[in-house]
Amino acid sequence: MIQILNVSLGERSYPIHIGCGLLSDAALIQPYLKQKKAVVVSNTTVAPLYLATLTETLGQAGVAVQPVILPDGEEYKNWATLNLIFDALLASHCERSTPLIALGGGVIGDMGGFAAACYQRGMPFIQVPTTLLSQVDSSVGGKTAINHPLGKNMIGAFYQPCLVLADLNTLDTLPRRELAAGLAEVIKYGLIGDPEFFAWLENHLDALLACDKTALAYAVARSCANKAAVVAADEREAGERALLNLGHTFGHAIETGLGYGQWLHGEAVAAGTLIAAELSVRLGWLTADEARRIEGLLSRAELPVRAPPLGVERYLELMRHDKKVADGQLRLVLLQGIGRAAVTDTASEGDISAAIAARCD
Amino acid sequence: MIQILNVSLGERSYPIHIGCGLLSDAALIQPYLKQKKAVVVSNTTVAPLYLATLTETLGQAGVAVQPVILPDGEEYKNWATLNLIFDALLASHCERSTPLIALGGGVIGDMGGFAAACYQRGMPFIQVPTTLLSQVDSSVGGKTAINHPLGKNMIGAFYQPCLVLADLNTLDTLPRRELAAGLAEVIKYGLIGDPEFFAWLENHLDALLACDKTALAYAVARSCANKAAVVAADEREAGERALLNLGHTFGHAIETGLGYGQWLHGEAVAAGTLIAAELSVRLGWLTADEARRIEGLLSRAELPVRAPPLGVERYLELMRHDKKVADGQLRLVLLQGIGRAAVTDTASEGDISAAIAARCD
Repeated sequence: MIQILNVSLGERSYPIHIGCGLLSDAALIQPYLKQKKAVVVSNTTVAPLYLATLTETLGQAGVAVQPVILPDGEEYKNWATLNLIFDALLASHCERSTPLIALGGGVIGDMGGFAAACYQRGMPFIQVPTTLLSQVDSSVGGKTAINHPLGKNMIGAFYQPCLVLADLNTLDTLPRRELAAGLAEVIKYGLIGDPEFFAWLENHLDALLACDKTALAYAVARSCANKAAVVAADEREAGERALLNLGHTFGHAIETGLGYGQWLHGEAVAAGTLIAAELSVRLGWLTADEARRIEGLLSRAELPVRAPPLGVERYLELMRHDKKVADGQLRLVLLQGIGRAAVTDTASEGDISAAIAARCD
Repeated sequence: MIQILNVSLGERSYPIHIGCGLLSDAALIQPYLKQKKAVVVSNTTVAPLYLATLTETLGQAGVAVQPVILPDGEEYKNWATLNLIFDALLASHCERSTPLIALGGGVIGDMGGFAAACYQRGMPFIQVPTTLLSQVDSSVGGKTAINHPLGKNMIGAFYQPCLVLADLNTLDTLPRRELAAGLAEVIKYGLIGDPEFFAWLENHLDALLACDKTALAYAVARSCANKAAVVAADEREAGERALLNLGHTFGHAIETGLGYGQWLHGEAVAAGTLIAAELSVRLGWLTADEARRIEGLLSRAELPVRAPPLGVERYLELMRHDKKVADGQLRLVLLQGIGRAAVTDTASEGDISAAIAARCD
């Protein structure tokens, strides 16, 4: 069964298809291919698994594939790797109407999307996310970016795909550590605004970890629906969309501080979410019981519940580069309960420091 | 007297102010500065002339300037120089609401605008164009880009400024060669769709070359109005906007073929426009008299009327990288008369080659 979710963004609206075996469904992708050529951006891990299938499917649709295979890992999400895409696009005479298909996880989606946004000022972009994290997160909302040595996702664009194909079968080859990292973002949606979903996750976590397709289909669709509702109301993050960054200001500090590629993004978000919960408790926003419930679920999902020992000062320094800083004031997403997130700039540096210290190894 | 022209692009609409002494007018720019800090991107030629004035004006508005001074020249319009902007933005903790002001010509506007488009996925952008070319061309329409070794303006974004200040006084320090290069684009607007303006230019060219402010004010405003009308109808160049590229497919081949920075952009456009006119005559679209009239005006404007001898094959190879190629077919802007441009993909390679050969040294 295929579920179709529409992301409503006016003329930039697009469908997300969620189901099993979508990579082999030529009829699904054909309407989006206006040329006889398409570029597929993937990496050295995913390409050996799924590029042949996608190439065959596109061949049935009469479309030849120009593959661009990048090294795998967050540490390659930089300008040098992005330029490999531009070099390939120019060398193979790609036009502004040639579609670019990103086949891989969040890093491939972010870089493929940013390349599509910039090449000749914009070419059609199709996402085929192959990790749980990218299916529930980067497939919705059009955030694309590369990292800068001084900050994660600092250089990028809002650029919407015209189609997303989330083939759940690709999760069968996903390492368990990456499945868990994806669950961190899934759990985040429950925490931000969907307490029923949080409770459902508490009841179905084992099925998800076992890669049960029915459970995964439900979790992916509900996560995407949650994100799509927020993004539709605030595409360029002027307000409400910032809530999606729960755990991310702390999480990005962890990723940048450790060096990109050390912790997975979802792992950093999990530890960051627990710092946010700790701070929420200190401000009297969240009960200690609720914080324990959150830690319990993240822990069962095999995610780190303690942050790495970078030192409180280093955390604060890294966080000052965050995109949510406004007029020098750090704006944090905290919790007023399970299913109720809010942005605040009222937390004192003392409270923030104490929360970090309490959750660091 | 200040003229104000509105570029109508829905929520991305913005005003262009055209007049003398705008750089010193704090009241004009103040409403667009929401922070106590602004970044000014300029180059080693323009900064010594105008940065102090702009800094003083912003100081009156209570805004401190963080300058970013780049090397001057088209040959620096690349990723390495763009990254100098990103490094400075991050090192000085710029936020996504910090405005970026581009003070300089087309290269500074293109790079400043692209940096503003990408930094944290978009910061407010103000243009203060200081060359005739940038006042009549890059100040309207939001095209930003950097060059790639394989093609000009290949990596970029459509990103609109929130304000443009075209201070005609800055043209007093413009080298005569650059004034002439700007006139190439001014003449282009007459050729594309405004035959009255073309006739006006024939009558007022000497005043323009003498930097007469009344004539310049009229020419800049009418050029911007011409471009704004086209851009409002077709922001992302799906159709009509391509007409603005008259002379540019050939011109970009000249710039890329000679190496960026050898010929000024306007010089390449002038020679390219005459290849387009030659081809138009060969196709029976334009009379030989009209072509002579065009050559006469460009020649009086001290612009090159012959293209450099790159060899016809090299021209064709470079043109195949053009952004206007669709389904492998080169689409050219040609003339059906003075004031009547049209896009066509019907010119044969033989005709194109013959036109290039006829106009090359």
